[in-house]
Amino acid sequence: MLDPFQKHPRRLAVLGVGLIGGSFAMALRAAARDVHIVGYDRDEVNLLAARHMGVIDSAVHDAASAVREADMVMIAVPVGQFETVLASIVPALSPSAIITDVGSTKGSVVKCAKALLGSAFERFVPAHPIAGAEHNGVRAARVDLFKGCSVVITPTDVGHELPRDIIRKCWEACGAKVEEMSVARHDAIFGVVSHLPHLLSFALVYDIATRTDAETYFHFAASGFRDFTRIAASNPDMWRDISLANRDVLLQELARYREHLDRLSQLISQQDGPQLEDFFRVAREARRDWTDNNTLD
Amino acid sequence: MLDPFQKHPRRLAVLGVGLIGGSFAMALRAAARDVHIVGYDRDEVNLLAARHMGVIDSAVHDAASAVREADMVMIAVPVGQFETVLASIVPALSPSAIITDVGSTKGSVVKCAKALLGSAFERFVPAHPIAGAEHNGVRAARVDLFKGCSVVITPTDVGHELPRDIIRKCWEACGAKVEEMSVARHDAIFGVVSHLPHLLSFALVYDIATRTDAETYFHFAASGFRDFTRIAASNPDMWRDISLANRDVLLQELARYREHLDRLSQLISQQDGPQLEDFFRVAREARRDWTDNNTLD
Repeated sequence: MLDPFQKHPRRLAVLGVGLIGGSFAMALRAAARDVHIVGYDRDEVNLLAARHMGVIDSAVHDAASAVREADMVMIAVPVGQFETVLASIVPALSPSAIITDVGSTKGSVVKCAKALLGSAFERFVPAHPIAGAEHNGVRAARVDLFKGCSVVITPTDVGHELPRDIIRKCWEACGAKVEEMSVARHDAIFGVVSHLPHLLSFALVYDIATRTDAETYFHFAASGFRDFTRIAASNPDMWRDISLANRDVLLQELARYREHLDRLSQLISQQDGPQLEDFFRVAREARRDWTDNNTLD
Repeated sequence: MLDPFQKHPRRLAVLGVGLIGGSFAMALRAAARDVHIVGYDRDEVNLLAARHMGVIDSAVHDAASAVREADMVMIAVPVGQFETVLASIVPALSPSAIITDVGSTKGSVVKCAKALLGSAFERFVPAHPIAGAEHNGVRAARVDLFKGCSVVITPTDVGHELPRDIIRKCWEACGAKVEEMSVARHDAIFGVVSHLPHLLSFALVYDIATRTDAETYFHFAASGFRDFTRIAASNPDMWRDISLANRDVLLQELARYREHLDRLSQLISQQDGPQLEDFFRVAREARRDWTDNNTLD
């Protein structure tokens, strides 16, 4: 395992050199110039681009080769590919390597890591950087993507403290603020503040796109629509995987959200102006407070 | 009535000198320097600010005084105040004045105008500029707010052509593109591309704000949440009025939208990856096409 006094890995394997994996490699290299970064990506064009851009030092064509001799393994593939990639690297892992990931859902990832990693599970540090964009691939990667953003680490029951500290320091070296919470808490929170709005945004655009006169509707869509539906341009594979991985939370939250819509329908149907206004005011005030406390807006 | 060869009013009354009314006054003055603009607003501070900023030439404290001798009357109050304001000006209207409005819903406005205006209803031109912002009041007004934006005119059955042409020319002088459609079509389209997403965005923020641990949820909300909920910072009074004014369309569209959510719940529950991906892909492609055809994004 990494020397506790050594803050950064000497040999880092990045599996999935996309927006997140690529940005992590760039930021870590900026912080630790002597790191050697081996990259693997199932998309050969993307992998070559990563090598060409200098995001990685060497490119390999299978995940197992990438992790051999690596003291840190960053799994940055979509949640739905996590199991396949992890299974393929287990036999090649160095006995002291620290393994970490960046998945947007943690329950499914931890369950899978526990099943596949054996004793290396003690050196697995589940993490989730709260960053992203509609664009993906290494060409969208940026050295400062994580600057000022939050990274949530969700320690496992058996996870050792040292790997966790090292992963924390790596993210801090990338400019991120690291916070810890349980796996279940993570999935509950992100199910509501991230996964649910993605489903709702996809559903609105789907609703319009499947009308016979969709073109006219889209023609009159303005800035409110633009903002509301920006996340509906997100990657369908990735959101399929997230929806399935955080299934229980999403089913519960969709049901809860539908109750709010039922309430709105009822208030509109009964022409209850004061209650409608109250509903909107609670939301408006919370949204304004959020803006005031947040540098994102 | 205005001379057909005269493109702009000589004396314009603006009732409600907020973001929209104020910007219209500014843009029209830029196009026609000799226009005299009389402003009325029930918010005295806002009215004084409009006078102080030079958005209006004179400020009056009741709507009836504003419209006396005006050859054009622009009603730019929230949809919910339209009836009260219209009722108060009817006795004072010049027998040739053109009356127009900017309401986001047209069915309720036209119904009310028909009931109150008598023969002047022939000179009423319902219009809806597709512009706005979370901010309101004259301080948010801008001379170029309507530049390149769409204005929808929804002619009534009995509306004369001349007033419609003049209103069209005024909006074109403000830099807007004018399109025409029926009242019902207007309300159906904007119910979906504007009103529904506002309700959905309010509902998500309400959902989080009413949790006991709302603070933690908001703490982890990121850029996707920010964009999705930007319209939840909109004015609660205004959205109460719009929700009630476009009641039938919204009830129907909320029901339709809930069916999409039910479908998503079903697909997640059955772990139907391919269908989920298809759903998201239809939305993503439509959203990307919209971006490609639109200068807003």
